[in-house]
Amino acid sequence: MLNLDFHPSGRHFLQIPGPSPVPDRILRAMSLPTIDHRGPEFGALGLTLLAKLKQVFKTEGPVIIYPASGTGAWEAALANTLSPGDRVLMFETGHFATLWHTMARRLQLDPEFIGLPGYEGWRHGVRADMIEARLREDPAHEIKAVCVVHNETSTGVTSDIAAVRRAIDAAGHPALLLVDTISGLASADYRHDEWGVDVTISGSQKGLMLPPGISFNAVSERAIEASHHNRMPKSFWAWDEILEANQNGYWPYTPSTNLLYGLNESLDMLLEEGLDQVLARHQRWAAGVRQAVAAWGLEIQCQDPAVYSPVLTGVVMPEGVDADAVRKLIYERFDLSLGTGLGKAKGKMFRIGHLGDCNDLTLIATLGGCEAGMKLAGVPLAGSGVGAALDYFAHHPLDAIR
Amino acid sequence: MLNLDFHPSGRHFLQIPGPSPVPDRILRAMSLPTIDHRGPEFGALGLTLLAKLKQVFKTEGPVIIYPASGTGAWEAALANTLSPGDRVLMFETGHFATLWHTMARRLQLDPEFIGLPGYEGWRHGVRADMIEARLREDPAHEIKAVCVVHNETSTGVTSDIAAVRRAIDAAGHPALLLVDTISGLASADYRHDEWGVDVTISGSQKGLMLPPGISFNAVSERAIEASHHNRMPKSFWAWDEILEANQNGYWPYTPSTNLLYGLNESLDMLLEEGLDQVLARHQRWAAGVRQAVAAWGLEIQCQDPAVYSPVLTGVVMPEGVDADAVRKLIYERFDLSLGTGLGKAKGKMFRIGHLGDCNDLTLIATLGGCEAGMKLAGVPLAGSGVGAALDYFAHHPLDAIR
Amino acid sequence: MLNLDFHPSGRHFLQIPGPSPVPDRILRAMSLPTIDHRGPEFGALGLTLLAKLKQVFKTEGPVIIYPASGTGAWEAALANTLSPGDRVLMFETGHFATLWHTMARRLQLDPEFIGLPGYEGWRHGVRADMIEARLREDPAHEIKAVCVVHNETSTGVTSDIAAVRRAIDAAGHPALLLVDTISGLASADYRHDEWGVDVTISGSQKGLMLPPGISFNAVSERAIEASHHNRMPKSFWAWDEILEANQNGYWPYTPSTNLLYGLNESLDMLLEEGLDQVLARHQRWAAGVRQAVAAWGLEIQCQDPAVYSPVLTGVVMPEGVDADAVRKLIYERFDLSLGTGLGKAKGKMFRIGHLGDCNDLTLIATLGGCEAGMKLAGVPLAGSGVGAALDYFAHHPLDAIR
Amino acid sequence: MLNLDFHPSGRHFLQIPGPSPVPDRILRAMSLPTIDHRGPEFGALGLTLLAKLKQVFKTEGPVIIYPASGTGAWEAALANTLSPGDRVLMFETGHFATLWHTMARRLQLDPEFIGLPGYEGWRHGVRADMIEARLREDPAHEIKAVCVVHNETSTGVTSDIAAVRRAIDAAGHPALLLVDTISGLASADYRHDEWGVDVTISGSQKGLMLPPGISFNAVSERAIEASHHNRMPKSFWAWDEILEANQNGYWPYTPSTNLLYGLNESLDMLLEEGLDQVLARHQRWAAGVRQAVAAWGLEIQCQDPAVYSPVLTGVVMPEGVDADAVRKLIYERFDLSLGTGLGKAKGKMFRIGHLGDCNDLTLIATLGGCEAGMKLAGVPLAGSGVGAALDYFAHHPLDAIR
Repeated sequence: MLNLDFHPSGRHFLQIPGPSPVPDRILRAMSLPTIDHRGPEFGALGLTLLAKLKQVFKTEGPVIIYPASGTGAWEAALANTLSPGDRVLMFETGHFATLWHTMARRLQLDPEFIGLPGYEGWRHGVRADMIEARLREDPAHEIKAVCVVHNETSTGVTSDIAAVRRAIDAAGHPALLLVDTISGLASADYRHDEWGVDVTISGSQKGLMLPPGISFNAVSERAIEASHHNRMPKSFWAWDEILEANQNGYWPYTPSTNLLYGLNESLDMLLEEGLDQVLARHQRWAAGVRQAVAAWGLEIQCQDPAVYSPVLTGVVMPEGVDADAVRKLIYERFDLSLGTGLGKAKGKMFRIGHLGDCNDLTLIATLGGCEAGMKLAGVPLAGSGVGAALDYFAHHPLDAIR
Repeated sequence: MLNLDFHPSGRHFLQIPGPSPVPDRILRAMSLPTIDHRGPEFGALGLTLLAKLKQVFKTEGPVIIYPASGTGAWEAALANTLSPGDRVLMFETGHFATLWHTMARRLQLDPEFIGLPGYEGWRHGVRADMIEARLREDPAHEIKAVCVVHNETSTGVTSDIAAVRRAIDAAGHPALLLVDTISGLASADYRHDEWGVDVTISGSQKGLMLPPGISFNAVSERAIEASHHNRMPKSFWAWDEILEANQNGYWPYTPSTNLLYGLNESLDMLLEEGLDQVLARHQRWAAGVRQAVAAWGLEIQCQDPAVYSPVLTGVVMPEGVDADAVRKLIYERFDLSLGTGLGKAKGKMFRIGHLGDCNDLTLIATLGGCEAGMKLAGVPLAGSGVGAALDYFAHHPLDAIR
Repeated sequence: MLNLDFHPSGRHFLQIPGPSPVPDRILRAMSLPTIDHRGPEFGALGLTLLAKLKQVFKTEGPVIIYPASGTGAWEAALANTLSPGDRVLMFETGHFATLWHTMARRLQLDPEFIGLPGYEGWRHGVRADMIEARLREDPAHEIKAVCVVHNETSTGVTSDIAAVRRAIDAAGHPALLLVDTISGLASADYRHDEWGVDVTISGSQKGLMLPPGISFNAVSERAIEASHHNRMPKSFWAWDEILEANQNGYWPYTPSTNLLYGLNESLDMLLEEGLDQVLARHQRWAAGVRQAVAAWGLEIQCQDPAVYSPVLTGVVMPEGVDADAVRKLIYERFDLSLGTGLGKAKGKMFRIGHLGDCNDLTLIATLGGCEAGMKLAGVPLAGSGVGAALDYFAHHPLDAIR
Repeated sequence: MLNLDFHPSGRHFLQIPGPSPVPDRILRAMSLPTIDHRGPEFGALGLTLLAKLKQVFKTEGPVIIYPASGTGAWEAALANTLSPGDRVLMFETGHFATLWHTMARRLQLDPEFIGLPGYEGWRHGVRADMIEARLREDPAHEIKAVCVVHNETSTGVTSDIAAVRRAIDAAGHPALLLVDTISGLASADYRHDEWGVDVTISGSQKGLMLPPGISFNAVSERAIEASHHNRMPKSFWAWDEILEANQNGYWPYTPSTNLLYGLNESLDMLLEEGLDQVLARHQRWAAGVRQAVAAWGLEIQCQDPAVYSPVLTGVVMPEGVDADAVRKLIYERFDLSLGTGLGKAKGKMFRIGHLGDCNDLTLIATLGGCEAGMKLAGVPLAGSGVGAALDYFAHHPLDAIR
């Protein structure tokens, strides 16, 4: 029998950029007995959830909940709005943008992947001007959708989505705007309606602080209209039956009841604290972590301060240092999980998640583990990152920065 | 804030044919901290799970785990093996067979739905002879797959899958055999390899005693071969990347970590008890419940004793009685959830689930609630079903019937 | 390693008259992280608890909470009010009255144990007239306290405490009145102030639905006054330091923090439902269970209907039947724990607990297990107790009987 | 309703020297359903627990478990071995020694409280030579027991118990040796048999990592012999009935079932890891914390390095700094609970607990909170304690120091 309680003493520090640690309050909610998903209490739960979710996505429109993980919500967004052979414009910001592009090809779409040359795209945000330029070259409107990642989890870059919408409008182009904010929602500022997004994709295991397993599509009227005519074979992901059943708080097939209990608790926690406060909390943590990286004399993966992610920070290792070896040492010696470098960034950097159920001292512990581990691995450090972050947190109380 | 602890006193009796009650042991396992799905412990967990799952499906081949509910696994089976326009032979056994047929149409397949006339199909099992006859009329092998439901959750009929395989073989037809045993696995006898099934579809929230949220495809070599050539757009459901990542115990995208903890515990519970014992336990419960229905003088939905389900029993109400009104009264007065009549059976019957984390007295309580509720609703009863079931359980100890 | 999850399938039915089943809602509350018992949140918790407790004891005076089980609260009542050598009048109602009498002797008091002759005292309640008569024979007031058990857990008799107070007053005697309602509180009507009780003793694991481990003394001003002068060596049990620390919601030594979380939840549950409703619920269950015993043609241990306990019912076995052998068979075959016959009742009867976190169907299950087990053990039964109880519950909805 | 989930984000750091944080593994064990304390599984649990406990106390003799908190076990030790008026020699090492002395007086014993003058006793360990000298002055053997605290939780001093035993023996004195290791057991080296202790007192909420609520007496044959003749009124605490019932794994009155589940898990965790490893782990943490205090340029409460506690460290504030104001600031700004200065140490120092379910990064977080808080409070610090501890932990892996 596998022993899942493998840590001899103390709590493991899970500081990857998702799944994020699940608060006990949510775990307790998830341990309630599973109820009949066709009974009256369930309908009441469903209606409550769907109403509260809109506040977090900042939309007046519907939000679809899938009993499937975030990758499924990517597929749902494409399968409901596009048809085989459709041209789609996607922007390379990192590993997850790349995976989404691969998915589009597998779904028999015709995706065009633009971006900055080489590794540069992995260190900057979406360039709205490049999107605008490309759309202007499409007078026939063959491009049916623009797909961008809001918070690129592989690099720690949070792109400006409002600018992308402005670019599409400036080009006078009717393409739908599909946005992945799987790791951004409820940690980074996000506004589905105000930014004119047509489909927003998100998941449970990041800012919502749930285990993985459910995911979301927030949808505009234009997106729903497209779903009535597109020709992609679709059933599980199809919005129509879900939207209909949701009218009464139900789903057309068995929902993930216990994760929905957790979602209900998560939404209560976020709304009780206040979304603005939640976002300020993440910005402050990110600033403290960047102080640490600066004190170490290391580079941050994101090279444009305007789009630093409040959710995670990529720490670039000096030439010749294998970031994964450093991560492994930190994991084994300090019971701390950090995010690995993915795709083009493999071995070059590691990622510190600073999202969800954390506090200042959780991050001090995390930075302590990083600092001691890098020293043991022989990474030359300019100074104490832990000390710098401590000073930052001490002199920037959350109340003061709002 | 929604209060999910709405029952004033005592535990709700959830006796629908799934989701079934989740044992505390599994709820506790699911409350372990979420870990890094790319870390070393996760790989070990994944390999263990995949190995143990094979024992439950009785297969030497791979079992795919989806971070999605059972309906998704239906879609996965179709999306990996068939192409738009393909002809598929499906057999009407009840509501879930009907829903699967609808899904096939939405996925742009060309399903043919055969079965007994009118309501008869909803009271009997799959007729292998009808399948054989139809296949013999297809010398060009246009039919690419035969799709049947093993344990029809809407009626309480457990069809003979080995007979379907024999029928296909007798017709000398190359169609794949796809079988839904979402509510049969780990409660009713099921043998993927021995019965020559190509894709077995199952879910978590029935005999595996987990909350809903993950689902399965057990796949044959022929099915995998088909997946290499079929032309349905597929990405999330595609077996290829999952099978590759599974080699090391990982998944290509974020798995439902905490449900996998629960699955690990579930598999341990089933294998510790012994699958044969688990199946005998369900058969015995079903026999006791049928004793009760007989004592009440009521009809069982399934009219063929050879295919009575060990998982659930449909209880037919006399003409003129609205089964849903009876269910509602029982729910409100006795804190007991029963399964509603679905589709063609709506209002005509209710379903008693007798699966998973139950014991004799759980079922006595359930039958007691049914009996008192039916009496209060004015349903004429011939005698005491509770008494009959009590006598049956008393005189047929589990040890003795094996 | 001991496997505490020893039941292969389904929940064990714990129908002893305490510890009673703990609701999941309370178990969840108890799993909150332990906090600093000297910190500000703890003080707030303490003050809340102490205020809510008064409502359940129906007192305006203080209630002491001990981090010790119920037997400790017995000792506390004696140790705070009496001195070595003091004469105490105790009334034999069963096993627990007998154990308390033994304790008084071990504490070097001089207890006088009166009661009905032989086994009669174990089948009736306290006789206030006998107490009055004895007190009238004590003009020198050598008797310092009268000790009675309110709800005798070993027999299922709930004595009339108001009558005892009237008897003491009628005799013009200054003896203190000490009452054990360990198994009565929050299930049977109890009124500390109105009935003029000086010390009420209770525990956590019965009507309060908590695990065992904390216990209570509700105290009158006269009792507190006595505690200032009595000469029993006392420290852990001493009220003075506790009452002082309680002013601010704290305790003089480490309290049982996590059980106090559970107590807080328990009190909320009871007060949300309403104490009157809680008591009516227990009375109704007891009436249903007695219908079953009558239908079986068996005797109830308590021979005076005026003092039938709403908490438990003692079922007397026919001559020649070993009640413990019946209990053992029921336990092994039906996963149901019943209370054993204690002391003079050993082997003669078993006890069915019907308290706390139950509902109608829990009790139907329990009665079903009793009925089938007695039949298997060869106990001759006149008719179906399960059927009788079902009918009773069906025709006496809780709303109607209030 | 009181909200016990009051922390907006992240886990509270509970770094007081007990109650210590309870591992999730133990909380899960404690949430198992309460069982019949007179049933067969309970007896098996009891026997297992009692056997495993002996290994932790390092004794061949019996260990009594009380369903009461640690203060009760103090009283039990005195009540079972001594008689009113008995002279007892107690040594002042701090607040808890003082409280025990007060208890002895309240129990009508005649305690003599010796120690170093003034505040010195609170900064050093027990002086075995002073005990020996005093016993030599008692040729009539009026002193019946010597009482000392092993790990003084108020100061962070772990006295040499073997030396006390040698002192008693050197004086040829028959006094019993009673030792409080409430906060030492399972964190600091302790050997009941080898050190010739007669009664060892301990509790659940420190090194055993349980919530408070149960406590222990490990007893020698001489202590048991004394309990047969002593004249203190005793019942709840009396060893005789407990020892008798323990023969079969039961208790004479209701035990704290769910805490015993937790104890079972705790003992498994300790014995799986190995007691030697557990003790080395605490010594290493204590050394790292002392490096931090040294780097800050502050004094440690304990002035004798030979008796530094592995469980907690008292940090002395400079003249003029109110330690409680510093603690309050740290609590409010960094969600970190530290131990207050108690009794004579009030306001002069705070205590850092480094015991139980911790790891290196938990302590780095704790030291970070202390460092930032002291700076904000204006405490002058010589250097970075966090940095010093990080270096110590990095260069002293647990494997290497054993």
